[in-house]
Amino acid sequence: MKKGCPFGTHRVIAPAGALPQPAKKIDNTMEIYDNEILIDVQTLNIDSASFTQIKEQAGGDVEKIKEIMMGIVAERGKHQNPVTGSGGMLIGTVEKIGPALEGKTDLKVGDKIATLVSLSLTPLRIDEIVEVRKNIDQVDIKGKAILFESGIYAVLPDDLPENLALSVLDVAGAPAQTAKLVKPGDTVLVIGGAGKSGMLCCYEAKRRAGVTGKVICLGSSEKSLERAKQANIADVYIAADATKPVEVMEKVSAVTGGKMADITINCVNVPDTEMSSILATKKEGLIYFFSMATSFTKAALGAEGVGSDVTMIVGNGYTKGHAQITLQIMRESKELRKIYEELYA
Amino acid sequence: MKKGCPFGTHRVIAPAGALPQPAKKIDNTMEIYDNEILIDVQTLNIDSASFTQIKEQAGGDVEKIKEIMMGIVAERGKHQNPVTGSGGMLIGTVEKIGPALEGKTDLKVGDKIATLVSLSLTPLRIDEIVEVRKNIDQVDIKGKAILFESGIYAVLPDDLPENLALSVLDVAGAPAQTAKLVKPGDTVLVIGGAGKSGMLCCYEAKRRAGVTGKVICLGSSEKSLERAKQANIADVYIAADATKPVEVMEKVSAVTGGKMADITINCVNVPDTEMSSILATKKEGLIYFFSMATSFTKAALGAEGVGSDVTMIVGNGYTKGHAQITLQIMRESKELRKIYEELYA
Repeated sequence: MKKGCPFGTHRVIAPAGALPQPAKKIDNTMEIYDNEILIDVQTLNIDSASFTQIKEQAGGDVEKIKEIMMGIVAERGKHQNPVTGSGGMLIGTVEKIGPALEGKTDLKVGDKIATLVSLSLTPLRIDEIVEVRKNIDQVDIKGKAILFESGIYAVLPDDLPENLALSVLDVAGAPAQTAKLVKPGDTVLVIGGAGKSGMLCCYEAKRRAGVTGKVICLGSSEKSLERAKQANIADVYIAADATKPVEVMEKVSAVTGGKMADITINCVNVPDTEMSSILATKKEGLIYFFSMATSFTKAALGAEGVGSDVTMIVGNGYTKGHAQITLQIMRESKELRKIYEELYA
Repeated sequence: MKKGCPFGTHRVIAPAGALPQPAKKIDNTMEIYDNEILIDVQTLNIDSASFTQIKEQAGGDVEKIKEIMMGIVAERGKHQNPVTGSGGMLIGTVEKIGPALEGKTDLKVGDKIATLVSLSLTPLRIDEIVEVRKNIDQVDIKGKAILFESGIYAVLPDDLPENLALSVLDVAGAPAQTAKLVKPGDTVLVIGGAGKSGMLCCYEAKRRAGVTGKVICLGSSEKSLERAKQANIADVYIAADATKPVEVMEKVSAVTGGKMADITINCVNVPDTEMSSILATKKEGLIYFFSMATSFTKAALGAEGVGSDVTMIVGNGYTKGHAQITLQIMRESKELRKIYEELYA
C-alpha cells in the first residue's frame, strides 16, 4: 500500500508541489493510501456561495445543476466551484481506514460522519446524483470520497437528525469564532444575520455580549427577519441591502446613537458587502468576514480608502471545538432548532 | 460649488450606490466639489502586485506599459488595475482646497503631499506620462488628482528625499501593523522579508520581539537575502520559494525546532502563498496578509483544510500613525536607508 502525506499532496496532479485545495486537479481514484479514510458518500452539502452560483448558471433547472456538478468533479477530481473557489462538505459512512491511522483515529468502519474539511480539497467520485434539494443546498449522491490524515470530521450525534446536524456543521466555524471574539458589553452587528450561519452567530453573540451588550441582526428581507425575531436571537433587527454601504452605515448609526459596532460579523453570501461592513464598524473595531464571497482587495483597500483602522479577519472554517459549540445551539434553542429543521434539513 | 460626500460617492458613475473603490467607473473631471482637494500630480507609485502584472502584460516594453496605464484611467477614471484590483499612491502639490474643508484640514495650497489612500479610488487624469521607472514601480506624469474629505495623506518631510519618502509611505501600513502585533519573545516569520515592505516589517518585528524573540526573513533569492543581512534586520535568513508550502514548512520547522512561527507576515507580491503561510505558522498563531495577491478563499479554505485554528488578518493599508512609524525607520537605520535609496528611490 502506498504511503501518503498528511495533507494529501500525494493526490495532487496539477500544478506540481501544490496542496489539494489550491490544486487545479487531484487524483480521485478510490484506492486508498496508507493514511487515508475511504467514505461511502450519502449527501453533499454544497457551500452556499457556490450553490447560489450553480443555480444561477443553471437557471434553476435541476438536470442542468446535475450536469454542472458532474462537470466540476470530472474536471477537478473534487467539487470545487471554479467561479467561487469554494466547496462544501459531505456525510457518509466510513468504509475503509488506512493501516497507518491505527491508534491515531477514534473512527471505525461503519461510523457515520460529516467531513468538516471543504469539498474543495476532498477527492470525490460521483457515480449518480440521486436527488437535488435546491432550497437547502443539499444533494444526495451515490459515490465515494477520501478523507486525508489532517482532515477534520465529526461523528454524527445520536440525538439530532442527520440533515439538521449536517446543515449546522457546514457553518460551524462562524458561531464558534463568534464565541471566541465577542466580549460582555460589545455592540455586535451580524450582516446576513437572518441567514443560515448568521442566526447561529447572532445567538452566540447575544449569549456572550450579554445584557450590557447589543446584538444587531441585519437582513435583506422582512420575512427572514420576522423568523429571526421569533427565535429572539438579537436585540435589534434592521432590514437593509448589504451591498449599499451608505444605507447600512446610516441605519446602524441610528440604532447605536452614532457609535457604530465594536464587532461586525459578515455572513452574507453575495459579493460587494465589504464596504458596508467597514462603514458600519468603529474605526478601531473588528470585522470577521465569514462569507466566501469576500474579496481580499476590496476589504483591504476599502478600509484604507476611508481611513479606517479596523481589524479585518479572514473567516477560518475551523476552530477548536467548533462542531460541539454549534451542535449545542440546536440542543439549547427550541426556536432555532425548529427554524433550521424547517428551512435547512 | 457642488457639495460632496466625505467618502466621494458623488463621483461614482457606475454602479449606482457604490463607493469609489469598488466602483467600476468614477468621474475624473477636475472641477472640485466643496470638500475636495485638487492635486497637481508629479509621480505615481503603482502598487507592486499591479505593476508586476502590467509589466508582464506589456512584456517589459515601456511604451506598452504607458498604453496599458492610459487605458486603465480612460476606462475607470482612476488607476485601478482590473486584474489585481489594486492601485498605489501619488505625490503632488496641493492646487486647490474646497471651502468646506476650511478649519478641518491643516493643508494649504502649495504643500507637497503624498496621498495615502489607494489610487484605486482616487479620481485621476493623466495628460502625459513623462517617465516610467520600471524597477521601482514609479511613473512620473503630468496630470491632476482629487483627494476626498476622508482621504489620508502625509505632508512630505523636509529631512528625507521625496522619492525615498514616497517609496516607504506606499507600504507604511505593513511595518506599522507589525509594530502593533509583535510582542516580546515572539517568533516572527516574514515571507517576502527581503522585499520592499518585508524589510521594514523585519526591522519593526526585531525591535518588538527583542532578544527573547526570533525574526525569520524568508526570501526567494540569495542576492536579496544578502542585502537584508547587511542591514541586520533578522535573526535567521531562509531562501525558499513561497509558493511551495511543503518546502517552506520544512525550512521553518528546521530553524524553530519544529515549533513554527507565532506570527507570520506575508509581504510577497505573487499569488498562491497562502498555504505556505498557514503551514509555517503555529495552529493557534496569527497570519497577517499584507500582499494584495492574497486570495480570500484560498486562505479561508486552506486553513480549514489542514485543520489549523490560525487567525488570519486582512492587511489594512492604514493604521493610526503609520506614516510616522515608517518614516522613522529611515531616520534610524542607516543601512536600510542606504538600501532603499539604492533600490526604490
